[in-house]
Amino acid sequence: MADPHPGRSTYRIMDSPLPDSRLWRPGPVRTMSSSDGPPAPFTTLAVSRPAEEMVECFQQISDDQACRVVLISGAGTTFTAGIDLMDMAADILQPEGDDTARIAWNLRKLIRRYQETFSVLEKCPKPVVAAVHGACIGGGVDLITACDIRLCTQDAWFQVKEVDIGLAADVGTLQRLPKVIGSRSLVNELALTARKMYADEAKSSGLVSRVFPDQDAMMAGALQMAAEMAARSPVAVQGTKINLIYSRDHGVAEGLDYMAAWNMSMLQTQDVMKSAQGTMEKKSPKEILFSKL
Amino acid sequence: MADPHPGRSTYRIMDSPLPDSRLWRPGPVRTMSSSDGPPAPFTTLAVSRPAEEMVECFQQISDDQACRVVLISGAGTTFTAGIDLMDMAADILQPEGDDTARIAWNLRKLIRRYQETFSVLEKCPKPVVAAVHGACIGGGVDLITACDIRLCTQDAWFQVKEVDIGLAADVGTLQRLPKVIGSRSLVNELALTARKMYADEAKSSGLVSRVFPDQDAMMAGALQMAAEMAARSPVAVQGTKINLIYSRDHGVAEGLDYMAAWNMSMLQTQDVMKSAQGTMEKKSPKEILFSKL
Amino acid sequence: MADPHPGRSTYRIMDSPLPDSRLWRPGPVRTMSSSDGPPAPFTTLAVSRPAEEMVECFQQISDDQACRVVLISGAGTTFTAGIDLMDMAADILQPEGDDTARIAWNLRKLIRRYQETFSVLEKCPKPVVAAVHGACIGGGVDLITACDIRLCTQDAWFQVKEVDIGLAADVGTLQRLPKVIGSRSLVNELALTARKMYADEAKSSGLVSRVFPDQDAMMAGALQMAAEMAARSPVAVQGTKINLIYSRDHGVAEGLDYMAAWNMSMLQTQDVMKSAQGTMEKKSPKEILFSKL
Amino acid sequence: MADPHPGRSTYRIMDSPLPDSRLWRPGPVRTMSSSDGPPAPFTTLAVSRPAEEMVECFQQISDDQACRVVLISGAGTTFTAGIDLMDMAADILQPEGDDTARIAWNLRKLIRRYQETFSVLEKCPKPVVAAVHGACIGGGVDLITACDIRLCTQDAWFQVKEVDIGLAADVGTLQRLPKVIGSRSLVNELALTARKMYADEAKSSGLVSRVFPDQDAMMAGALQMAAEMAARSPVAVQGTKINLIYSRDHGVAEGLDYMAAWNMSMLQTQDVMKSAQGTMEKKSPKEILFSKL
Amino acid sequence: MADPHPGRSTYRIMDSPLPDSRLWRPGPVRTMSSSDGPPAPFTTLAVSRPAEEMVECFQQISDDQACRVVLISGAGTTFTAGIDLMDMAADILQPEGDDTARIAWNLRKLIRRYQETFSVLEKCPKPVVAAVHGACIGGGVDLITACDIRLCTQDAWFQVKEVDIGLAADVGTLQRLPKVIGSRSLVNELALTARKMYADEAKSSGLVSRVFPDQDAMMAGALQMAAEMAARSPVAVQGTKINLIYSRDHGVAEGLDYMAAWNMSMLQTQDVMKSAQGTMEKKSPKEILFSKL
Amino acid sequence: MADPHPGRSTYRIMDSPLPDSRLWRPGPVRTMSSSDGPPAPFTTLAVSRPAEEMVECFQQISDDQACRVVLISGAGTTFTAGIDLMDMAADILQPEGDDTARIAWNLRKLIRRYQETFSVLEKCPKPVVAAVHGACIGGGVDLITACDIRLCTQDAWFQVKEVDIGLAADVGTLQRLPKVIGSRSLVNELALTARKMYADEAKSSGLVSRVFPDQDAMMAGALQMAAEMAARSPVAVQGTKINLIYSRDHGVAEGLDYMAAWNMSMLQTQDVMKSAQGTMEKKSPKEILFSKL
Repeated sequence: MADPHPGRSTYRIMDSPLPDSRLWRPGPVRTMSSSDGPPAPFTTLAVSRPAEEMVECFQQISDDQACRVVLISGAGTTFTAGIDLMDMAADILQPEGDDTARIAWNLRKLIRRYQETFSVLEKCPKPVVAAVHGACIGGGVDLITACDIRLCTQDAWFQVKEVDIGLAADVGTLQRLPKVIGSRSLVNELALTARKMYADEAKSSGLVSRVFPDQDAMMAGALQMAAEMAARSPVAVQGTKINLIYSRDHGVAEGLDYMAAWNMSMLQTQDVMKSAQGTMEKKSPKEILFSKL
Repeated sequence: MADPHPGRSTYRIMDSPLPDSRLWRPGPVRTMSSSDGPPAPFTTLAVSRPAEEMVECFQQISDDQACRVVLISGAGTTFTAGIDLMDMAADILQPEGDDTARIAWNLRKLIRRYQETFSVLEKCPKPVVAAVHGACIGGGVDLITACDIRLCTQDAWFQVKEVDIGLAADVGTLQRLPKVIGSRSLVNELALTARKMYADEAKSSGLVSRVFPDQDAMMAGALQMAAEMAARSPVAVQGTKINLIYSRDHGVAEGLDYMAAWNMSMLQTQDVMKSAQGTMEKKSPKEILFSKL
Repeated sequence: MADPHPGRSTYRIMDSPLPDSRLWRPGPVRTMSSSDGPPAPFTTLAVSRPAEEMVECFQQISDDQACRVVLISGAGTTFTAGIDLMDMAADILQPEGDDTARIAWNLRKLIRRYQETFSVLEKCPKPVVAAVHGACIGGGVDLITACDIRLCTQDAWFQVKEVDIGLAADVGTLQRLPKVIGSRSLVNELALTARKMYADEAKSSGLVSRVFPDQDAMMAGALQMAAEMAARSPVAVQGTKINLIYSRDHGVAEGLDYMAAWNMSMLQTQDVMKSAQGTMEKKSPKEILFSKL
Repeated sequence: MADPHPGRSTYRIMDSPLPDSRLWRPGPVRTMSSSDGPPAPFTTLAVSRPAEEMVECFQQISDDQACRVVLISGAGTTFTAGIDLMDMAADILQPEGDDTARIAWNLRKLIRRYQETFSVLEKCPKPVVAAVHGACIGGGVDLITACDIRLCTQDAWFQVKEVDIGLAADVGTLQRLPKVIGSRSLVNELALTARKMYADEAKSSGLVSRVFPDQDAMMAGALQMAAEMAARSPVAVQGTKINLIYSRDHGVAEGLDYMAAWNMSMLQTQDVMKSAQGTMEKKSPKEILFSKL
Repeated sequence: MADPHPGRSTYRIMDSPLPDSRLWRPGPVRTMSSSDGPPAPFTTLAVSRPAEEMVECFQQISDDQACRVVLISGAGTTFTAGIDLMDMAADILQPEGDDTARIAWNLRKLIRRYQETFSVLEKCPKPVVAAVHGACIGGGVDLITACDIRLCTQDAWFQVKEVDIGLAADVGTLQRLPKVIGSRSLVNELALTARKMYADEAKSSGLVSRVFPDQDAMMAGALQMAAEMAARSPVAVQGTKINLIYSRDHGVAEGLDYMAAWNMSMLQTQDVMKSAQGTMEKKSPKEILFSKL
Repeated sequence: MADPHPGRSTYRIMDSPLPDSRLWRPGPVRTMSSSDGPPAPFTTLAVSRPAEEMVECFQQISDDQACRVVLISGAGTTFTAGIDLMDMAADILQPEGDDTARIAWNLRKLIRRYQETFSVLEKCPKPVVAAVHGACIGGGVDLITACDIRLCTQDAWFQVKEVDIGLAADVGTLQRLPKVIGSRSLVNELALTARKMYADEAKSSGLVSRVFPDQDAMMAGALQMAAEMAARSPVAVQGTKINLIYSRDHGVAEGLDYMAAWNMSMLQTQDVMKSAQGTMEKKSPKEILFSKL
């Protein structure tokens, strides 16, 4: 059967905390059950060793014009169980180098590479949604704070675990979490005491924008949200993401200046006319066909 | 009758989504009904074509020493119905220019001019309060995020509409909304999906600081709040606004440095002595007469 | 009796609004009542004239390797009653200087010195917790926004009082409050109208991360939280604080770069191995002995 | 006679220190004597009161698509004699305002307005060349440091005069001069001692990029340089100016990011193809006709 | 024969403007003729298509612990003849994309990729020296401004050529040249008029730090300079490069803060003790053996 | 005899590389021999251990209203011989701390303290002139780049020595030298190879703004320059220094904004009127008496 919405497929990255895995594992492919139209095709990527594969994976996603949205979830009993202590030991506890400075040099390269593992989520111009159930610990928090939208189930909980293992979180949480939620007192409390935060506080603090009763409801909601974004002009959606991230790291005047440079070409898209016509004809965005991007 | 509080008048800008208007329309002049003293005179400005008139209007307000606060509201059934598609068509869909670069050049000038339309709200040193009822869509969100304080009625709703018409919001929302509310997940969700946000979520997310049951209650509350600000030292109030905006776009150390340079003159105002005396004499701020600014 | 946890003591700074005091006053020494182990020794510092003593006091705390956490509370009926008008008069209302510029010069030095009084709280690498009951006014808000974590009782209230005395708050509130809570509309309202904010709004807006029914419950909670932080690796905890503050004032990429430079030495601590072993042996952090820092 | 190069005309702003003038005065219109082709039409603007007229004048220049370059020179015996003491007296020495803070408020507005007088030179996207002979004092240095290219005669001299009249230069020199020349020791010496700098030192320090024996030679050289810029693609030339100024105030990574956003539309100009064809056909840029901008 | 200085080899990248090449071409391998010791082994990399190969090439160099310095020169009659018009045509003049926005999107990706081609020179922690003879045009200027040290022969000349082909230079020159040389008037003149700059002006303006009579003398000087850097502690040399580049893009206080975080590990190197001992024993740095980095 | 110019005295800090000294040593007091008026009193401070004494010394200078300029020179055969290896050994080579992280922590505190030793030169609002003869090595370069104006004798030479002892210069040179001189190629060459730079290159590169034939001529020139600055309005001179340093670390728009906040009080000084009157009466600045600052 021909794909009725060739430009609207999304990637879905799943993760499974099976005993023999570390962080990521592919789950079964699920298609999107949206009430308004045939399901958009979802492609599930298997990411079993995220530190090694994420950069390449998101490079591929960024370049794939068929992909419009990315959804990251966990297929097992929990979102992510955090870093395995034995894994860490090899990297941090037995570092290479002839002296302290050379060990430091190698550790910095390691940290930068891990940081990049999560920064690719931001560099990817397509929206990335994280759907969390169960535990989201340590590297899981680094991961979701680099996503654009966070959803969770009622049984989800979050823990900035790093101080418990003797280190300051260095691959993103300390940089992004304070820009993601509105209470600095809470951010500091979480990062300095490693206490757990449950779904209600995650919602009231703004870490997640929606809480669902269970995983099925969350996945349905996440897929519907993904469908909303996938249906709209990719010029509009991806330009919005890029400028939202730019604005986070710049003052308002700087952000406006960049925005104007950006839109002086992007406003020349056919999508504006298509959208305007669609609106006048009372069409849903899902009924308008935009070129790929 | 002589004006008993010559320095405390405020501007009130009203907007009415009448069929023949675009964004702004003058409403009837209303005076302030405050319990403690005679009503301060309100001046209502008619702004029927905001894109053309806002810059000049706020230049006038900034220079008018009689004005201490600005209140923006909608006089009709809703705050603002967003941009008219036909208006937009003329600007964006039929751009002038001999080639893509020259069209881009003209579009950038257009975007910068529209951006300035809202930035003048921030450059105006007097506090600007937005009181929203009904719909606040598209350009309405650009407008209110450039205001200092946002209030709304229980029936208000907000929509970052731009992705629906094929473009990334480019006149302020993407730059200011993330600095205005505390949940980045919510900001991204709103901007990437164009979903509506209602009053309760606007309150819990911090977009508005108060929700009122209906428009009459809101206007009473807004006028009372305006009266509070109008009664205080304009040196204190306007210096506070200027430094709050400066701090938003700078780190803490930068902000403190600027603040010290600012207050080395401003602390030499008579208003400090007047306020100190008034406090010792148990006076309300409204009983103290400050010079205009 | 030998100190069983020599590296875990904390400073506790207390404040008492007795009639003859200004801002700070020493309270009785209290020890920490933690359920899991003997109480860590608390040292109470007497700070009766904060503007003069805070810098020296926190210099001492920063250099004292025995101190791991600082807890600031008020011993009297309220957290702080704000600045005394007579005190202010001497500084601001009777400034020295032969002309306006020279008065300005001296006022700037005065402001910078007061700003430093609160900035030392941030420069101190040990976490600082503020526990607020009753009133927290003016300088009290400057103080607590420079702390890392804020707790309060149900009867607490907060007031940015400066516009009431004719000046823009210039020693920290305008710079830090907007970065501490998630609603800019609320920040502006508080600073421009000087209205009081009570405990519930302080919690929902994110100013405090926990509200306790009364002062006893709050102190118990605060001490327990302090014990949690004091029990963990000081390399991890203090590195976390330093990088959280760095991140507040920088974009994400800048923060990640600094973090990597920081941790290339800090990951070489024994604390990682000690923590990893402790975790594998199912020990609580409080059972692990870390070297002082 | 038809204009053979309709898009290449330039404005020329002249200045004459006649006794009754303050800073600016129109000189006689001069046309460009270029060896390779007919003279491009020069328009001379009369600017007799720069503080009042510069903003409007450069707004007009920015919008005039026929203008491609601006050349600023002095028609009298010297470039500019600096600010008249009597003029200054009215503004600074008799300021309006009820108290020190209100005088400060008005002075700040005055300073900002004067600053804008020179900042418009940078905001104008067309290159601005300053050709200096004789004295360039005080406001003259503010002016030329806001230009893109500086030329002078052998008899020219420059003086940052402000410390001699009891004030720190506040309309641009202290901000721009250090970014214009390569020796900070020299910048500081000039600004702190008000000593004169002559043409040779102006050249070796990089303030000017060329020194000419006399005014006639300089004007010929300036007009030829203006003709070179006027002959090239305005998309290229004006985009270059805008990005050079952006780069001055940003780090390299920021500048590259902005540049990429800029050129994603500007590379779509016909001018690239026209230039490429012209180059292959061994044409001079002056033989290629670009659309106006 | 065993390599007597295993840690001191350098890469040498050569370029040859043969008719059939574009930008880069491998030259013959040359060894270093230094008077004080046996020649350090030089490895010559062949880079015939820099836009495709530079990123990978410098990734390899960055990771190669045997490499301490990189020297880039041209093996033919000139350093680089600039971009080939036919090459450019394929990329810029026939861009892909369904509409203006999508073409812009692809052009931005292209620009970002080209920018990265030169930015890798800065990201490489080893010093990069450019030795220029003959012409250095267009992309050649982008290249050398991303190097750390620039040398040239008396017959060298430099040209920012982009305005001649209708575009603003977008892969580095406009961002780096103003930070590399001390005269902004000269930078602007070069970029806006595309005039040539010869060796003497390149030296007096600071673009190059040394001029040599001919290519042989330059290569001897460059190799000797490279040997000086290769002989010193790589912890010191590479840390110096990284912090010099950091400082370029940050204020002094920011740079000092980063420097302190950097050196808190790097000062723990054995190289300090080795260097101190060597100095006390009157050894040349070339007689001290440092571990690789 | 009464002091005829009570506000014009300057501090003079001297340094002597006697065998038993480290960096600084007091020289004999010298008074200023200026042709136009009686000598202003010079006070010579003895700074024998700069790392310990500089902060306190410049705190004292900053607060001493009688001091208007500071002149730093070497009383012995050379300006400074650099850091003593035995001194360094105690600090860097035998660091305290239980593990690598704790050693790093202590090293960072040490670096920050040394950095502050030179940063106080910038924080001091009075101009600081460095007069260099003979060698200026290592810490000497850190020192002079933190001064405002640099002069030297024909026999002076400069050396960024740190790479020779195995470390990246971490107390100021790498941060300030690139902002002080105009050639980045030269800065990098000096810092990466530790080669000496002599007076002529120091002058042509902009490191010093004047070269004198010998030390007597330099001291006469330095004292005359100091007298020029000491004679002018301290409000103007010190405000100029503060804003020049602010501008170095900020973009132009930021610098202009700060400048306007600064001068809104400083323009209200009597010094403007005194200077204006003095100018109209053809007085030299040295004949005008300004109040102290």
